[in-house]
Amino acid sequence: MKEALEFIYKEQKEISTLGGVAALLGWDQMTYMPPMGAEERSDQTAMISRITHERIISDQLWHHIESLSKLETFEKLADKDKSVVARLKKDLEKARKVPPEFVEKMAKTTTLAYPAWQMAREKNDFSIFSPHLEKIVGLEKEYCDLVNIPGPKYNSLLDDYEEGMTVDKLKTEFEYLKSQLVETLQRIKSTEIYNKQENFDKKFSIKMQRDICDIIIDKIGLPKNRVRLDISTHPFTTSMGYDDVRFTTNFDHENPLFSLFSTVHESGHALYELGMPKDEFKDTVISDAPSLGLHESQSRFWENMIARSKPFWNYFYPIFKEFSPTQFKDLDLEVWYRYVNQVRPSLIRVDADELTYCLHVILRFELESALIDDKIKVSELPGLWNEKMNEMLGIKPTTDKEGVLQDMHWSGGDFGYFPTYAIGTVYAAQLFKKLSEDNPRVNEEIEKGEFGNILTWLGEHVHKYGRLMDSDEIIKKCCGDGLNSKVYVSYLKDKYYNLYGV
Amino acid sequence: MKEALEFIYKEQKEISTLGGVAALLGWDQMTYMPPMGAEERSDQTAMISRITHERIISDQLWHHIESLSKLETFEKLADKDKSVVARLKKDLEKARKVPPEFVEKMAKTTTLAYPAWQMAREKNDFSIFSPHLEKIVGLEKEYCDLVNIPGPKYNSLLDDYEEGMTVDKLKTEFEYLKSQLVETLQRIKSTEIYNKQENFDKKFSIKMQRDICDIIIDKIGLPKNRVRLDISTHPFTTSMGYDDVRFTTNFDHENPLFSLFSTVHESGHALYELGMPKDEFKDTVISDAPSLGLHESQSRFWENMIARSKPFWNYFYPIFKEFSPTQFKDLDLEVWYRYVNQVRPSLIRVDADELTYCLHVILRFELESALIDDKIKVSELPGLWNEKMNEMLGIKPTTDKEGVLQDMHWSGGDFGYFPTYAIGTVYAAQLFKKLSEDNPRVNEEIEKGEFGNILTWLGEHVHKYGRLMDSDEIIKKCCGDGLNSKVYVSYLKDKYYNLYGV
Repeated sequence: MKEALEFIYKEQKEISTLGGVAALLGWDQMTYMPPMGAEERSDQTAMISRITHERIISDQLWHHIESLSKLETFEKLADKDKSVVARLKKDLEKARKVPPEFVEKMAKTTTLAYPAWQMAREKNDFSIFSPHLEKIVGLEKEYCDLVNIPGPKYNSLLDDYEEGMTVDKLKTEFEYLKSQLVETLQRIKSTEIYNKQENFDKKFSIKMQRDICDIIIDKIGLPKNRVRLDISTHPFTTSMGYDDVRFTTNFDHENPLFSLFSTVHESGHALYELGMPKDEFKDTVISDAPSLGLHESQSRFWENMIARSKPFWNYFYPIFKEFSPTQFKDLDLEVWYRYVNQVRPSLIRVDADELTYCLHVILRFELESALIDDKIKVSELPGLWNEKMNEMLGIKPTTDKEGVLQDMHWSGGDFGYFPTYAIGTVYAAQLFKKLSEDNPRVNEEIEKGEFGNILTWLGEHVHKYGRLMDSDEIIKKCCGDGLNSKVYVSYLKDKYYNLYGV
Repeated sequence: MKEALEFIYKEQKEISTLGGVAALLGWDQMTYMPPMGAEERSDQTAMISRITHERIISDQLWHHIESLSKLETFEKLADKDKSVVARLKKDLEKARKVPPEFVEKMAKTTTLAYPAWQMAREKNDFSIFSPHLEKIVGLEKEYCDLVNIPGPKYNSLLDDYEEGMTVDKLKTEFEYLKSQLVETLQRIKSTEIYNKQENFDKKFSIKMQRDICDIIIDKIGLPKNRVRLDISTHPFTTSMGYDDVRFTTNFDHENPLFSLFSTVHESGHALYELGMPKDEFKDTVISDAPSLGLHESQSRFWENMIARSKPFWNYFYPIFKEFSPTQFKDLDLEVWYRYVNQVRPSLIRVDADELTYCLHVILRFELESALIDDKIKVSELPGLWNEKMNEMLGIKPTTDKEGVLQDMHWSGGDFGYFPTYAIGTVYAAQLFKKLSEDNPRVNEEIEKGEFGNILTWLGEHVHKYGRLMDSDEIIKKCCGDGLNSKVYVSYLKDKYYNLYGV
């Protein structure tokens, strides 16, 4: 037993070390790597991921886990070891269903699909991408058969990103959410305020945007000696280790709100990574997020519930406008707050406002789940995309570039990923509601730029668990219910009906 | 035979891929890593280097190399394969002499020695570092016994950095070089110009320094899509792959010449990495520099022979002074050129001028070779260091911080490394002499800011060979002789006697 325990902890430590190496390879590729380095980088990434996968599915590791899982042995384990053994067993069971040859085939297919998607998008020609997408969808189905979670095939994909989530559960939540969002949007669109709203025309230099972001991450409380902010085309967060978390933003847009919200969003991810259970669970399977949805709940929490809130701008607007006093001379807080939360249906998900964002996600969920469960074909995607956009948002892409080709996810084989964006958004609202009950002074604290109690609360109710429970259990333990779109819808209606005078 | 060849090429490719991963881990540690990331980074680096070493010394690889090396098989190989098999055999023979346990022991010892050296330097207290240095010196001797190259023990260390170099050869060269440098310095110190020379007082912002460096690397012809320049405490160059070379500089000093010369110096290293044999030899043991001395010849070539030359400043001074016209208003090229080449004996190697630089290196060679060959003890180092400084440069450190504790090399176990700085400096002068014979218009080209022919010539005479020959063979083939300090001394005397009116 002692030998087996020693082995599994040593192995988890090494797998975690390799994970940090892989994270660095990925981060560097998105931030600093010279363009020509891409080919050799893909060899490096593939090799590290192959070595890691070999370790994960090794018979030796499995043998030790099996012996530790035997009832009479398991019962003698310390609580900590029980958690680790049970979690690791579940992970290995799943990983061992997928042979290395399949992983390699998928990697090769997506490696070719990504540049095809780029070109298709550039040339606005879906036919360049569709044969690759056909192959990927075929492989995704094959993957579902390997993993074989009960119910619709797509359940096996969902489970990778949101363990335990099913098509049925999600359909119920998303149907409700969709109908409520569409209705809310309709009502807002008929208001005078909506029909008179103007485009934002303030422009900020990169230097100013950077300085604003530095103030925010300092205020929110990201520790400079464990974290750094860089620039990449698409903002993201990654960890090379418990004490080395990197996140990125983008200052290309002259509109400072893009970099501001993306920095706050990624700060939420980074704070979660920095708050993972350390002492006894560092370098074990426990020290990780249980799902992407819960991870997204942290980014959305800081982005939507904090940085798009009135109390936040009460505090931050005076600081913010000091960066460009002339541009804001006659612009009072009320007008500015409206601007920050302007509803404006748009074709591109990453530019969407808070209200319409989840509709973009639901559209993708409906299409990809139908695709995997053989209800639609790849060739039907562009048309269906445009129809659904029109149905939900009342606008229709005129090109596939603004439609079905806008996101890279499918080219990387990331089916089942999109829903976590909406799940996290809903969770964030549930968490904030509970926080406000636990600490009725929270808005006053935000108004003073004090975020310490909020961070402590998130640490206590989410971060500290790592994977000791799944997301559903963590949210239930904290908020009473599991995923509950009603809470989110109610928050949205309060906020936006008020803003638009509905 | 076919199977064996396939195996060794595949294995070299994977070892090279892991080398790129290790390079990235090192580069990131020196440039962007948050401070707290150090501990996990050292685990990552250790793990990748252990995996790499296991591959290098694997019995399977050795078995295939042995079978390919059998006379009747070897003779049937294509020329390319012959080169690779012979080179790889030599590398493996050496690597296999060193057991993994030894590598680990050395890594652990130096991991502890480095912070001890840092603290000793900070507190100016050699006794904090000396017990660690004792251990390292003991391990270095053990290493020499394992590798067991004939002659003095220190030969085995030299061979790691400068294959084929011996204490005897180096002593002859360095004795001559030392006596000539000391004599030249004496004569310069007695001139009026020397005794009237003033300190440089021009200050440049980081932005200006960065812009100057960007102009230079663009002019020299470094391809932006394969290379990037970042900032680190100590400038260095490293490769993640054939098409991904990184080098660094430092803008901390307000004196722009530090960043300028270090950028040009590292550009020389980078150009060599970028010029390695590609097509048939990419990802083989051939595609590398045969020695650090030859690598240093490329950096010294661009730094000393080009960027400290009169033709270079004829071209570049007008561009340079435009960055700060007021500071240079009344300063003509002649005075500036003198400044750039000011001789001023100093205690710190990295700040040394061109003339005195090699004396710093020779001092270290004399001490470390005596240490390894049991002629002196660690405890005698500080005193001997100061004596030798006084003998060679006529100045004496008042603290060990300015003396024996100034360089980190010994804390990392890099004994045998220092001499390559002087070897490269001498080679650079030999190469420039030969280049001037081959292309008598070279100075005119430099005066016009045209460096294309120079780069092509270096590619033809040095870069393209990789490790098809050793450094001595490459230099002999190009210049007629091997290492020849006379050429360097003659260049120095011409230049500095002229500058100081001797």
